[in-house]
Order: sequence, then C-alpha cells, then structure tokens
Amino acid sequence: MKFQPPKGTRDFLPVEMITRQKVLEIIRNTFENYGFQPLETPAIESWELLSAKGAGGTEILKETYNFEDLGERRIGLRYDLTVPLARVVASNPSLQLPFKRYQIEKVWRYGDVTKGRFREFLQADIDTIGSDSVVADAEVIACAISTFIALGFENFVVRLNNRKILNALVKYVKVESEKINAVLTAVDKLDKIGVKGVERELTELKLTKDSEKNILDFIQVQASPEQALNKADKLLGALPEGKQGISELKELVGYLRKMNVEPKFKVDFSLARGLDYYTGPIFEVFAEEGIGSIAGGGRYDKMIGLFSGKDTPATGISLGIERIIEVMKDRKMIKQAKSKTKVFVAAVNDEVRDDVLSIVQKLRQGGVSVDFDLKNRNLTRQLEYADVMSIPFVVIVGKKELEKNVVILRDMAKKTQEELQTKDVISYLEKL
Amino acid sequence: MKFQPPKGTRDFLPVEMITRQKVLEIIRNTFENYGFQPLETPAIESWELLSAKGAGGTEILKETYNFEDLGERRIGLRYDLTVPLARVVASNPSLQLPFKRYQIEKVWRYGDVTKGRFREFLQADIDTIGSDSVVADAEVIACAISTFIALGFENFVVRLNNRKILNALVKYVKVESEKINAVLTAVDKLDKIGVKGVERELTELKLTKDSEKNILDFIQVQASPEQALNKADKLLGALPEGKQGISELKELVGYLRKMNVEPKFKVDFSLARGLDYYTGPIFEVFAEEGIGSIAGGGRYDKMIGLFSGKDTPATGISLGIERIIEVMKDRKMIKQAKSKTKVFVAAVNDEVRDDVLSIVQKLRQGGVSVDFDLKNRNLTRQLEYADVMSIPFVVIVGKKELEKNVVILRDMAKKTQEELQTKDVISYLEKL
Repeated sequence: MKFQPPKGTRDFLPVEMITRQKVLEIIRNTFENYGFQPLETPAIESWELLSAKGAGGTEILKETYNFEDLGERRIGLRYDLTVPLARVVASNPSLQLPFKRYQIEKVWRYGDVTKGRFREFLQADIDTIGSDSVVADAEVIACAISTFIALGFENFVVRLNNRKILNALVKYVKVESEKINAVLTAVDKLDKIGVKGVERELTELKLTKDSEKNILDFIQVQASPEQALNKADKLLGALPEGKQGISELKELVGYLRKMNVEPKFKVDFSLARGLDYYTGPIFEVFAEEGIGSIAGGGRYDKMIGLFSGKDTPATGISLGIERIIEVMKDRKMIKQAKSKTKVFVAAVNDEVRDDVLSIVQKLRQGGVSVDFDLKNRNLTRQLEYADVMSIPFVVIVGKKELEKNVVILRDMAKKTQEELQTKDVISYLEKL
Repeated sequence: MKFQPPKGTRDFLPVEMITRQKVLEIIRNTFENYGFQPLETPAIESWELLSAKGAGGTEILKETYNFEDLGERRIGLRYDLTVPLARVVASNPSLQLPFKRYQIEKVWRYGDVTKGRFREFLQADIDTIGSDSVVADAEVIACAISTFIALGFENFVVRLNNRKILNALVKYVKVESEKINAVLTAVDKLDKIGVKGVERELTELKLTKDSEKNILDFIQVQASPEQALNKADKLLGALPEGKQGISELKELVGYLRKMNVEPKFKVDFSLARGLDYYTGPIFEVFAEEGIGSIAGGGRYDKMIGLFSGKDTPATGISLGIERIIEVMKDRKMIKQAKSKTKVFVAAVNDEVRDDVLSIVQKLRQGGVSVDFDLKNRNLTRQLEYADVMSIPFVVIVGKKELEKNVVILRDMAKKTQEELQTKDVISYLEKL
C-alpha cells in the first residue's frame, strides 16, 4: 500500500499547520477588519452549476474532478469560490446588499503538478456583491494590500486595467468577434513571453498588420496612470465603452490614493486576466521583487445575473494563499513551531504520576496548554521529549518538592530553573 | 437551474458561520489546552486506502463517494479522519511519539438525509498515537468533557466498556466466530431497541438458550462502576482477555476521577460501538437529558499496524460537532450575529464621502472592524443598513462636524449619540 496522499495533495503536519493557522488568522482578521463576513459552501456542487454558461469556462472544466454520485447525479468538486458565491446569492434573494463576504476554503483542479501547483489548494477570496460603485473595487484591492502588510510583505505594485478598455481596443482595431478571446489571451502573456512572443501569437491569428501594430503599441504603454489613461483616451475615448473604462480607472486610482494603503499603481493595458466573466476593472497585486502576483481579481457584473436572471454587480479579489505561505516560509517571515504547548509537566519518578496528573489538570483548567508523559518515560527522556517538541517550559514534580508544596519550573531556552509554589505556576507563566 | 447546494450539503451564510466559528474556536482552544496539535489531510484519498482491511469497513464503504480521477485512479472522499491519520502515521516513521493530534475537517458520506444527518459534515477528532497507557484513554475523554464544559454543556455521563470484555463474553458463552459481529451489533442496540429487541435479534442468530440468557443478563448489569466490574470479574475474570479488560476499565475510572473533570461514569457492557477496529476501552459521552451521545471513541491498537506493519497503539475520541452546534443553537447557548463588524461610518451627504473613506481607513488601521456605504444611500438608509446588520456603532460624518474635527458616535442598541473628537474614536471604542 502507498501511504502518500494522492498526487498533488498534501498532509499538513503540526509544524506546517501551526504556520498555516497563523497566516490564516491574520488574513481572516484583516478581511473582517474591512467588514467582510465569513461564508462556507460545500466542496461538491452540481455539474449543472459548475459547467453553467458564465461560470468558470471550458479550460477550467477540463481540470474539474467530476463524477456521478451514488444517486447518479453528476457532481464535481468546486474549482473556485466565485461560482458557489454566485449560486448562494442567486438562491438567497432576500440577502441584504451589498453582501460582503470572505471565503477561505479548499478547491480542486486536476492540473499538472509542478512546484507550487497543487490539485487541492486553499483559496482566500473577498467579494462585494450588489454595489456597482468603483469604491467597492478600490476596497477589495485595499483590503488585499492591508492583508499583505499585516503578513509582513512590502513594496506593493498594483497593475490595473479595465475590460471595457480592452473591449474598446479590439473593437477599434476591428478584431473579428471569434478571435477576441484568443487576442486577449495572447495580450495577457506580455510579461511572460515578451513583445516578440505576443507578436508571434497575434500573427498566427491573422489580424491585419495595422491591427496587430495598434494592439502591440497600446499594450506596451509605460507611463504614470494619468498619462497612460490620457493615451488611452486619445485612442479609444470616442468609443463609449473605452470612455467609460478610462473614467472608471481614473476613479479607481483616485480612491486608492485616498485609502491610505500606499501601493504604487501601474495602469497596464496588457493585463487581461484569464477568466471570461470580468466586465470592468481588473487588477493584480505584486509584492517585492521575486514574489510575483499574489492577488488578482476584478469586476464581474454579469455572472450572477446569468444565474438568477437579475442583474447583480459584483467585484472581488482572490489571494494566492499557497504561494504566500510558501514565500513566508522560504523567507522565514513566520516563526516555525512543532507544538503550541506551553508547558510539559514531568514526573521525577513513578511515585508522583498521580500528582502530575492533578497538576496538569489544574494548569489546563487555568488556561495553560499542557502536556505530560504518556509513555512511562524516565525524567531524562521526558525532558528530551519536551525539548524535541520545543515546549518552552517544563514543570518538574518530585516527592520532596511536593511535600513543600513547590515544583521546579525549567525554562528550556534559557536552561535555567527555579523553585515555585505550586499554586503560583499559572500566574508566573502569565507574567512571561 | 437549481440553486440549492447538492442534497445533504449546506451553505453556511454569515449568521451561521459566525456561530460555527465561535464554537470551533472554543473546541480548538480546549484541544490545544490538552496538548493536541493541529493536522489536516486531503479531502480525497486513494480507494486502496479507504477500502483497506482494518479501515472503515464495508458498511461505510457503501456510503463513500468514489470515482476515477482524470488519470483513471480510483479515489474517494474521506468518510472519517481516523483512516487518514493512520496513513499519516504509517507514512511518517520519524514522527515523535506519542503523536497527539486534533483534526477538525469535513467528511462525506452518501447516506440517507434525515434531520441532523448530512452528506457533508464536520468532524472534530482528537487522537493519541503511540501510547498504550490507559491514561491516554482517560485524557481524550477528559479533553472531550472539558470541551463541552467550555461550550456550556452540563451533567455529563460517560458510558464505558472494553472490547476485551465483550470478546471474553462471546468466548465465554461460546458464540461461533462468524456470529460474533452480529451479536455485538445486536448488543449495542440495547438503549435503542430495549431488552426485548436485543433478545429478538439474538434469537434470530440461533445461539443456545444459555448463551442468549448469559449475554442478556450481562449487558443489563446496572451498578456502580466498581460493582459492575466485580460482577464482570466473577463471570469473565478467568479468561485472560476478560481479566485484562476489567483491569483496564478500573484503571480508566481511577484516572478519570483524578483528572478533576467530574463526569459521572457508568460501566455499560452493552456499549460495543459500530466500528470493527476497536481493541480496548470504548466510551461515549452524554450531556443533559435530551441531547444524546455527543462524543464517542475508543482504543484501536491494531489499525495502524495493519497499514504500516509496525504495531502502534492508538486511542481517540470524535465529537459529534454538527449535533453540538444544532443543540447550542436550539438552546440559544450562543449569541447569534449577522455581522462581526463593530462600526459603520455613515456620510450625512455626498459632500463628505471622501472624508468618510479616510476615517474608515484610519479606524481599520487602528484595528477596528469597519464598514461604510457602497451604494450611495442617504443617511436614513445607511442607518437602516447598519441596524439590519446589527452593527453596534455608527460614526456619523457631517460637514459642520468635520470643520470642528468631531464626529457623532451613535450607539445603535441604546439609541444614544454623542459628539467625539475624530482622533478619539478608536480609544473610545476600545474602552467599551
């Protein structure tokens, strides 16, 4: 029998879990700080939902675990948290809007397993449903950045674009409608495959030379947000969608400046983002050099309406949480620990095991996390175990000391010990 | 399109999630207080593991979601947290023992959906791997009871038995080996179907009249733990397994008394528990009248060895967490809230929206959870929203007040309001 978890999935042993819990607690607190409320949905969803028009799309469906349940209904494991959210909103018409929710849960995709890519992985999403205001877009970006600041990341750059601008662009250069998706997919690769690469892909799509040149020039605009938007205005301002997209981006930059989270902004017309469902501002957050994209999202005003029949604006951002945890571990941004236990109560010999038990329970009931020997080990072995588990304090219980109502408290890091009244152990530990 | 989640699964909207988070936090804290460390494993496991000899058994497998993944490997959704734990221990031979872990994660079983039974539900397990001491059994029981006390439950009764005693019993009354499982299954139903019911099932199994009578008499013993164990000793003390089971139960009762968690104990020889893998003490925890079993477990010293080839003792208890949450909601043991947000910052009119944004961000950066209007509503509507969401405080921002560097702070419950220096809002809220 193989004992490894299925390929692309992982066990999280305590040392790993303790790190993950710390990271997730900071993330959750910041999300709540921004007024987002928790939501959970099932791991399994109907295939009908997962494959619905307007949901994740064909590429994702190819990677979606799906099967017939024992009642012969086709179901699948969710591939993201946005489609379930849209279902929840559609099925709860009495939900108070705006509905600001966060969801931190696992999703599954049967993709290639490479370094840092898994088949079961955590997503952390915040979304605001029911507000068409650009301030809602600004808020999800600001919340993501505040989360990264709380985690210890620095030097943020936010790449901003707007699907409306891209729509205007492909209209302006007269891309045939069946080629639009392929063009946007090519454009989106600019930072990965470079100008030559994008050019090659566009050439393959057989656009006119003029179209190709216009697209390549436009997506390479490098300037301050204001200057970039002025350029866009000259090219696309005459098209209603272009005008609106440009104006939304201006507003977005303005809100972000006012929100005091101080990222740098970069309007980047090559940013398209993979998913079909975006309709307005789209954005990606980068931290220090070498980390890459750590969050991305955008506005998707049509998706919920496709499900519910009732237009409902929505915007959100997803944090690349597995990547974030990897980076934080690599950079030792979080202190690793094998155990959350604060005190190990050790017995000098078998005679005092009952007293150990009673001291252990008193400490626990006083709110201290405590462990003790379950293997009848001698004192040396007990101390070794406490050391290996990096438990910071050991209370040593001996017959002689018990008679004086004292115990010995050993500080494992400092390798010092002192005698304490048994009843004072809790208050002593609280002071530390 | 149907928007309900798949049958037997649930969405947890914020009001529900906030309750669940509170309950789970208490549970997690108590588990950690007792020195258990967090573990997580994948939702999907190989079918080879799930269906292995010594794992969950055929009844559970009938209810297990399973399918071929896109690489044509047969996998399934885990039906419990014990089998994955055994796999983790088998695959990590360098794990420091005893390994005390807790795991609070979802499991899936395709069973009948009745009130309180779901197809996707949470389990909360603690297990101690690598200790054959009865003190480890006592500790998991004490930890479960401390958890329930922390949650606000009272009047615990722990039903105790030992598989060794049951094994000795069936040996003593000469049950043929192929009937043993059926006999234990019948015996286990005593509290559900009564003596007559068990008698009927035993009769169907065609035991000798003597065997049947001996079994029925024995499983109905009602006495103090010590008296019950004395009776067992008279009947089964001559059989080595009987003797050992009785002595373990005595020890267990002794430890529980010393551990100062004060449950009542009841040695109940009809307790068999469904799973095949138990080898020693087995136990169930009951709280106040009308709640039923809220935790159950036992010792399973053979399971990990079946996987790893290396005998590894293990004991654990599983908390009936969905049941616990239902009871706590029904009995209003936990205060429900629609939102965790503490403050809503309202704009008197559109003129001050930018100032609102800056105040919101200052409060958030000061650690206060804050929401504000994303829908351009007037003041009345903003206050209504804050009220519906049960946000306890509203900061009202107006032009006149801004000129004086003050805001109005409204206490939504008391319906009072007062003027405050803008810079004092955080310290004022902290004091409350």
